[in-house]
Amino acid sequence: MRQSMIDMVHEIQDEICDALQQIDGVDYRQDEWLREEGGGGRSRVFSDGLVFEKAGVNVSVVYGTLSQEAAQSMGGGHELKGKDLDFFATGISLVLHPRNPMAPTVHANYRYFERGDGEKDGSWWFGGGADLTPSYLFEEDAKHFHAVLKETCDLHELADYDIYKKWCDDYFDIKHRGERRGIGGIFFDDVNGAPKADCFKFVSDCAKAFLPSYLPILERRRNLPFTEEQKEWQQIRRGRYVEFNLVYDRGTKFGLTTNGRIESILMSLPLTSRWEYCHEVEAGSEEDRLLQILREPKDWLAD
Amino acid sequence: MRQSMIDMVHEIQDEICDALQQIDGVDYRQDEWLREEGGGGRSRVFSDGLVFEKAGVNVSVVYGTLSQEAAQSMGGGHELKGKDLDFFATGISLVLHPRNPMAPTVHANYRYFERGDGEKDGSWWFGGGADLTPSYLFEEDAKHFHAVLKETCDLHELADYDIYKKWCDDYFDIKHRGERRGIGGIFFDDVNGAPKADCFKFVSDCAKAFLPSYLPILERRRNLPFTEEQKEWQQIRRGRYVEFNLVYDRGTKFGLTTNGRIESILMSLPLTSRWEYCHEVEAGSEEDRLLQILREPKDWLAD
Repeated sequence: MRQSMIDMVHEIQDEICDALQQIDGVDYRQDEWLREEGGGGRSRVFSDGLVFEKAGVNVSVVYGTLSQEAAQSMGGGHELKGKDLDFFATGISLVLHPRNPMAPTVHANYRYFERGDGEKDGSWWFGGGADLTPSYLFEEDAKHFHAVLKETCDLHELADYDIYKKWCDDYFDIKHRGERRGIGGIFFDDVNGAPKADCFKFVSDCAKAFLPSYLPILERRRNLPFTEEQKEWQQIRRGRYVEFNLVYDRGTKFGLTTNGRIESILMSLPLTSRWEYCHEVEAGSEEDRLLQILREPKDWLAD
Repeated sequence: MRQSMIDMVHEIQDEICDALQQIDGVDYRQDEWLREEGGGGRSRVFSDGLVFEKAGVNVSVVYGTLSQEAAQSMGGGHELKGKDLDFFATGISLVLHPRNPMAPTVHANYRYFERGDGEKDGSWWFGGGADLTPSYLFEEDAKHFHAVLKETCDLHELADYDIYKKWCDDYFDIKHRGERRGIGGIFFDDVNGAPKADCFKFVSDCAKAFLPSYLPILERRRNLPFTEEQKEWQQIRRGRYVEFNLVYDRGTKFGLTTNGRIESILMSLPLTSRWEYCHEVEAGSEEDRLLQILREPKDWLAD
């Protein structure tokens, strides 16, 4: 399973980066890095492209022994020792920030984790998800993104779109703002309730669904006209993105406290962002319409 | 003591805001806010001024009953209950972000806290400090800032500049970067080892020292010429400021988890900031010279 997942995330990274390169007109910068304690990764980042302000697609394969601190946060209250502290993790993680404020930011992450021997129940699991963060809301886009994710879930008995959709809304909650980061998608963790091969197939299908879920949206929005004010609103929304990632995101916090490769962890941050004191939107404006949805997530596929 | 400290922070807020208004050419926006659980504050923020991109000077007076969560983090391991959960806190907090990348950002905060009856040892304390965050290093500025703080400490037997200077370097540590946020200043907490009136006098003198510690620096730098590249470096340093405040700053974290007034807590964030993937500085450049100091804080007042 380790090798299958490693192969899958590398293939998907190639496929996605090839597609982005065609769209963006620039080449990515690739950094292969080694982790002192075991393993490493391959980071690819697009900067200053035609379409993307900043876009990163990372894979990593890391293993070793969990620190007591990390083990405690993952051990679910059980004391872990000896071989139980061994871990193996591999995954793909991407964040794309387009220039055009009409084109949404997107994030996806799919990962496989083993703790201890990785064979017995509870010693392995899959996690992941994908979510969309527009500055301007196009219902058509939200419906398309969610529909592709639901179709993918529906192909797998072990997966439940409704549960994963709610999990996503709950996870990407900027609690101090009373706003979600974006208009959701799916999020799941600890997926291990079916044979390992079935779980792997589900996660692989999700990863393969990334391009069809996002590219049609990007194509529709990347060349729309926009005003300076709309660009500024995008910058304010990017400030919120930073707030979520630095204050709440578990992966970011885990990376920052476990001596991960900082540039790969923080590649998720936008190129630029903005914090205006007491920024207010006009009632009934497009900005206001987005905020309403961020405050009360809706079911995009109802009726 | 409560009333003396309340009066002091309000007077200092007036004094500082009057000075900033003269310099900045614009008026501040004032928001008086009430806290549902008890108390409130007066926030003053300068936006879009001649000199400051964003500058906020807040005072607050809050009281009530600590949540179990907040009490635990402050109780030093003791179980607190009943009257011990009562608290009172008042303070002034300011962050000034000038436009010109040659002029440093500055932060200061002075506060008084009571828990329980506020009379017996350990049930009251003062805290605070001030620190400077330049994008470009002028040794003259660092020396002036530290010299004013040391002079203030030296007037008070209870205070120790050397200890508070090191405390500041240790506190404003962006651990995941291996960099300090800036070139330091002083930081202290739990100051209660002398009669309350003496501690108050020390903290008042610190607060009064703010303008003389900072304004001469601002005057020297606010009109210096700068390039677009230098402005961009300032934006990158502001990204680091955001990282520290959202990931490590205790006051910010406390505010975000205890239902504080979000706009007042996050007024410390710069107007704009920037994250470039794998940004590198030229060896021997001014940017590099700053980084060396942020990686290894120095004693500005030696010899």
